[in-house]
Amino acid sequence: MAKNAKISNAVIKRLPRYRRYLIELKKKGVEKISSKEFSNLIGYTASQIRQDLNNFGGFGQQGYGYSVDGLYKEISAILGLDKEYRMVIVGAGNLGQAIAKYTHFHKQGFKVCAAFDINPNLIGKDLDGIEILDYENIVEYVEEEEIDIGIICVNRDNAQEVADKLSFAGVKGIWNFAPTDIEVPSHVALEVVHLSDSLHSLAYHMNDIQKKEAAAEELRRSDKSARD
Amino acid sequence: MAKNAKISNAVIKRLPRYRRYLIELKKKGVEKISSKEFSNLIGYTASQIRQDLNNFGGFGQQGYGYSVDGLYKEISAILGLDKEYRMVIVGAGNLGQAIAKYTHFHKQGFKVCAAFDINPNLIGKDLDGIEILDYENIVEYVEEEEIDIGIICVNRDNAQEVADKLSFAGVKGIWNFAPTDIEVPSHVALEVVHLSDSLHSLAYHMNDIQKKEAAAEELRRSDKSARD
Repeated sequence: MAKNAKISNAVIKRLPRYRRYLIELKKKGVEKISSKEFSNLIGYTASQIRQDLNNFGGFGQQGYGYSVDGLYKEISAILGLDKEYRMVIVGAGNLGQAIAKYTHFHKQGFKVCAAFDINPNLIGKDLDGIEILDYENIVEYVEEEEIDIGIICVNRDNAQEVADKLSFAGVKGIWNFAPTDIEVPSHVALEVVHLSDSLHSLAYHMNDIQKKEAAAEELRRSDKSARD
Repeated sequence: MAKNAKISNAVIKRLPRYRRYLIELKKKGVEKISSKEFSNLIGYTASQIRQDLNNFGGFGQQGYGYSVDGLYKEISAILGLDKEYRMVIVGAGNLGQAIAKYTHFHKQGFKVCAAFDINPNLIGKDLDGIEILDYENIVEYVEEEEIDIGIICVNRDNAQEVADKLSFAGVKGIWNFAPTDIEVPSHVALEVVHLSDSLHSLAYHMNDIQKKEAAAEELRRSDKSARD
């Protein structure tokens, strides 16, 4: 763990994926796995896997493989998933409500404690046990309830103001779903889910595949007519 | 556009972001922008911006800057956002319902035509004008309604089967929200939103910041006691 500070972002981004596969292996009762077997499963090369896992001191033993449970626990600890996190959602519209009701996060130790909105028609409502509170009271709530993470589900125009308020109130991390870029103080971690950007990338790749297919078809045709 | 085939994935990933800023500039009535002004706004270096936009033949004129509207239209066309896309959602649970109701996509030309589920309590329901249909009929629907994109919001265990069925039915792209990796045929584009992975990254960065702060604090203390 001492080497932790030097780990590249690219490696960090792969850790949740390693962890997901380790959970599957645990479920299947697999106890040991070699980097080669892991490679077949996850799709990274065996050397990439060894290199990634060496960042953390290396859990594998030559000719023996990795302990599935040991690796799972180490990666969980590195990711900070051996604790519980308390979260609030700001913006209780469709997306905020969906996240509030998504029990998957709760099972992983991420607990949604409350949602906040400015809409009087929403304030006081209950989302499967999670209350929608008045945004006016968010700073007090975050302080008193020791909230770790604020999830921003408001629209583009209000996202920065919400981020400022959450940071001021003392959250350690912000998870931003608003379709805009926001800035946070250096002591607050920021992770962004840009749904529109992701959809636009999909559109690009769809068109790219079709253009390549059309070009290949054109080539086949001109090839055929040259032969005719 | 002829250079299109060589564009790296990293550049493509930046295009939706350029486009978002161009929309903001258009709203403000800005007609021209230099790479330097654009750099101040978006945070990439001016040389990065020139390099990125040169991939598409270069829309800028020396000493004149980029035409905001021209650049917006070109990037939109490159991303394939000058057309309309027809989408279906598979899995009408909380997340599927939220996406169905998220009007933001519709405004951008991505239309959700229907949602599908196997749950008889959900089939027949209406989500703000989008009907939940029986998953049994999805292949016929995708074929008849010429659906371009399938959005997967089912659980981990069913995601691959849904992807297979959507690909078979003829979608050109799949947007996967299920917390698992799926495979699609090479003629189908795939874009993934891993919400759990994103949350785990956030947890890592939060812990990383705290570890660094603790180490800095430790250093200050030992420094102080050495001086005392």
